[in-house]
Amino acid sequence: MSELKNDRLIRALLRQKVDQTPIWVMRQAGRYLPEYRQIREKAGSFMNLCQSPELACEVTLQPLERYPLDAAILFSDILTIPDAMGLGLYFTEGEGPKFKNPIRTEKDIDALAIPDPEVELRYVMDAVRLIRSELAGRVPLIGFAGSPWTIATYMVEGGGTKFFANTKTLMFDRPELMHRLLDKLAIATTEYLKAQIAAGAQAIMLFDTWGGMLTRRDYHEFSLAYMKKIVGQLKSVAPNVPITLFTKGGALWLESMADSGCDALGLDWTINIADARKRVGNSVALQGNMDPCVLYANPNRIEEEVKLILADYGKGCGHIFNLGHGIHPTIDPDHMGHLIESVQTHSRQYHQ
Amino acid sequence: MSELKNDRLIRALLRQKVDQTPIWVMRQAGRYLPEYRQIREKAGSFMNLCQSPELACEVTLQPLERYPLDAAILFSDILTIPDAMGLGLYFTEGEGPKFKNPIRTEKDIDALAIPDPEVELRYVMDAVRLIRSELAGRVPLIGFAGSPWTIATYMVEGGGTKFFANTKTLMFDRPELMHRLLDKLAIATTEYLKAQIAAGAQAIMLFDTWGGMLTRRDYHEFSLAYMKKIVGQLKSVAPNVPITLFTKGGALWLESMADSGCDALGLDWTINIADARKRVGNSVALQGNMDPCVLYANPNRIEEEVKLILADYGKGCGHIFNLGHGIHPTIDPDHMGHLIESVQTHSRQYHQ
Repeated sequence: MSELKNDRLIRALLRQKVDQTPIWVMRQAGRYLPEYRQIREKAGSFMNLCQSPELACEVTLQPLERYPLDAAILFSDILTIPDAMGLGLYFTEGEGPKFKNPIRTEKDIDALAIPDPEVELRYVMDAVRLIRSELAGRVPLIGFAGSPWTIATYMVEGGGTKFFANTKTLMFDRPELMHRLLDKLAIATTEYLKAQIAAGAQAIMLFDTWGGMLTRRDYHEFSLAYMKKIVGQLKSVAPNVPITLFTKGGALWLESMADSGCDALGLDWTINIADARKRVGNSVALQGNMDPCVLYANPNRIEEEVKLILADYGKGCGHIFNLGHGIHPTIDPDHMGHLIESVQTHSRQYHQ
Repeated sequence: MSELKNDRLIRALLRQKVDQTPIWVMRQAGRYLPEYRQIREKAGSFMNLCQSPELACEVTLQPLERYPLDAAILFSDILTIPDAMGLGLYFTEGEGPKFKNPIRTEKDIDALAIPDPEVELRYVMDAVRLIRSELAGRVPLIGFAGSPWTIATYMVEGGGTKFFANTKTLMFDRPELMHRLLDKLAIATTEYLKAQIAAGAQAIMLFDTWGGMLTRRDYHEFSLAYMKKIVGQLKSVAPNVPITLFTKGGALWLESMADSGCDALGLDWTINIADARKRVGNSVALQGNMDPCVLYANPNRIEEEVKLILADYGKGCGHIFNLGHGIHPTIDPDHMGHLIESVQTHSRQYHQ
């Protein structure tokens, strides 16, 4: 495979010197782009889009055609694993992901088989291979998965949820059963991410969208412990592939997240990045963390916020600029361009 | 008015010695109680229920008939103020509160008048007076309001929201206009709470449901600053009425919340209460903070969690037991009873 022409992201994740702060944006391949909406329509459904390596590759590359981003991220979904386990993933307009066969009982959990990534999830690996080949070393490709806890919430609820009532009832009433489910998901996720790395993913991110809905005790026991297992396993086979952990709403637990063996932490926008850096010291890189809503504002205000965040992080390596959560579907693509330009213009002074 | 026969809540809020940890529960008068659902049906709509002092009084007292709680909280809604400002509050099944006339422009904001609590919000004051009289000193009555920031989000969005896109666009693009709106809301809220105290409320709580959606900088500027104003104004007229601030998702900012002049902080369940106590020292009391989902679990598990939280807070005064958020509508009322019994049984040892 081709040598990386732009290795800013990888260097920053490993806390090495760069010329300017690398930037990529969560959901950078997404609905705010008219060219994405066009392909999405052509695909018919979101799942068709994910499951076609050619279309997934095309949308992965779309934001790179428009903007000087420092990374591509695989276009896929965190729920491919439970879908491959037979839960029947589908998407409803406005209501998000749903499962035809949610998991509620001991029998359901025991019946789950670990998917073979090159069989049931072959379409993801094919997409990774195709994207790597199409990228031709322009920027690194980020692979990803959901955290076991986050995936479990969708599997148990059968979709998105407000209160996590079913998941937490299982967790509080039958913790050993919840652990059995999470164990399986940690194994499946490890295999899935190993395969993504083998297929060409050059950095890995774990999305723990719902870890922040837990108490400190439950977060450590039911979410972080399993992410830590995955990190350990991946590091034993691919020690040089940087891993980023992102728990939305997890700012209270940055210290133990940093202690998981990962290379970087994703930050949502509620934590000030200067405070985060003070707390984790030089142990990990930090990715983030502009409020995605700033992109609704005028270009001057966007630039202002970029300058504040860059100044908060301060001098030195280990910062990857990103939003604190995915870019919203109604953002003006020009505002995204302005964000990237602002980061690239104003960050150079922090790397001299 | 009658002397307080049970002053545990007030004493704990003021960090004075008590015999056992007082407990009340957010939304204790609510849908999980069959007797509430009966009155709610009789009232026809949620707004009718709020606006009838007799019915509001009846539902306020319902949980006290069932359980040995240490406080009553006024049955009302945080959106009574914007309703009184003419926005036309209504509730849709499953979708929550809506406004007929949301606020979007400078003209909208300038047109808002400060309601006279004894005129436009007379029904709330009448409910407070009636409840105080019916309580006859059994337990104290908590009055409340929403934080200006939280109320503003509903006013600008016209209801609940996922991204706060309109509110934050206003905040980022026209901060001076957002401040004008928040200023008006702070004045209206101060007048409203002063009137509740004059009518008989013996403690006050400010609910900042959406402050946790802000960055550190924006939280301090757009939410905490206005709560602080309200606290200062209330303290100047009623220095002995304890005030609790609750920002859901606000655990990162406990130190500055504690510094606002309030007496107590409400904690959601994501922060461990031992960590919270370490951080704020003896400056304020702490209210909370069991995950509301624990009430889905079996009674033994509920008791276990109560013991953990009591032990985390540890010995000494200043703890008010509560959930970290409102009780869910599908909770078994017996589980609520078990929670209260567990707190009362296991907390005595911490007050010897």
